[in-house]
Amino acid sequence: MEILKKRIEKDGTLEEGNILKVDNFLNHQLDIKLLNEIGKELKNRYKDDKIDKILTIETSGIAIAAIVAQYFDVPVVYARKIETKVMEKDTYQSEVYSYTKGKSYTIRVAKKYLSKDERVLLIDDFLAKGKAMQGLINITEEAGAKVVGISAVIEKGFQEGGSYLRNKGYRLESLAIVDESEDGKIKFI
Amino acid sequence: MEILKKRIEKDGTLEEGNILKVDNFLNHQLDIKLLNEIGKELKNRYKDDKIDKILTIETSGIAIAAIVAQYFDVPVVYARKIETKVMEKDTYQSEVYSYTKGKSYTIRVAKKYLSKDERVLLIDDFLAKGKAMQGLINITEEAGAKVVGISAVIEKGFQEGGSYLRNKGYRLESLAIVDESEDGKIKFI
Repeated sequence: MEILKKRIEKDGTLEEGNILKVDNFLNHQLDIKLLNEIGKELKNRYKDDKIDKILTIETSGIAIAAIVAQYFDVPVVYARKIETKVMEKDTYQSEVYSYTKGKSYTIRVAKKYLSKDERVLLIDDFLAKGKAMQGLINITEEAGAKVVGISAVIEKGFQEGGSYLRNKGYRLESLAIVDESEDGKIKFI
Repeated sequence: MEILKKRIEKDGTLEEGNILKVDNFLNHQLDIKLLNEIGKELKNRYKDDKIDKILTIETSGIAIAAIVAQYFDVPVVYARKIETKVMEKDTYQSEVYSYTKGKSYTIRVAKKYLSKDERVLLIDDFLAKGKAMQGLINITEEAGAKVVGISAVIEKGFQEGGSYLRNKGYRLESLAIVDESEDGKIKFI
């Protein structure tokens, strides 16, 4: 998605440890016009698929999912992150390891908000090792719902999440795929 | 806002301790159509005010702010909650006590995303004692920006946040004001 790549080049920054920061438009300040362009693009990519619900994860997936959902005319559910492994009744849950934070957390969705046979589009801001996305897949499939598609605004092409999900047969649409930077400049694949 | 009150009556539930839960459409599952109605309503209420930016707070303010921002054609910034009092350079921050959680946390906004003289609309899902909103006010005013309006989707009219903010002269628009329930039924003021 050209407009997104240009924006990442313009306003994204590479922090220590090759971490891409997009706080300017996606993760702290939100460019709502750009999110609408993302919505149009995803609707176009999934135009032949019936989607009943968009599932994302707090915090940075929420705004993206909310704006994108307007183009599919469906509700959004966001999984909650909780730092405890205690089982709660009436929720689907999955444990997710965060490499960024160096610890595990539990994500949860209330059972009443995911139904058997619902057709679900998963959305998140970043896809790196794919652990959060795998957590959303686990929850969706445990509910008996179907993962129709998976979409990341930015995929880190040099990490294994993308190829892992594609190899498992999921339809993954990443809107920008960044490569590992060796010279401090942002590169795309 | 009639459509919102009807929705709260239909899908809101009162949990133990008189806690109003609106997970069905505002806090876990998101009814994007309803959020758009909220956007239209707020645009109408603030139609004579110049607004440059919408400021909210993670997590449950984000989706509301993102959809509402479309009607004002402005970016959103969301304050981050962090459980530490360590000062970070280049951020405005304020300490907020959460009565729900029984502890304090720090909210932060990067200085570069709030400018002097910017005209800011504050949005959150709930207004109870007003501590989170006061934190957003502190940050906005520390930046030299102006709080043009404050809006809560649901105000708990039986707690002091609303009257405190109105008495201080802020223009507070709450879209539904609930009263304390004595019989397990949701009542509006």
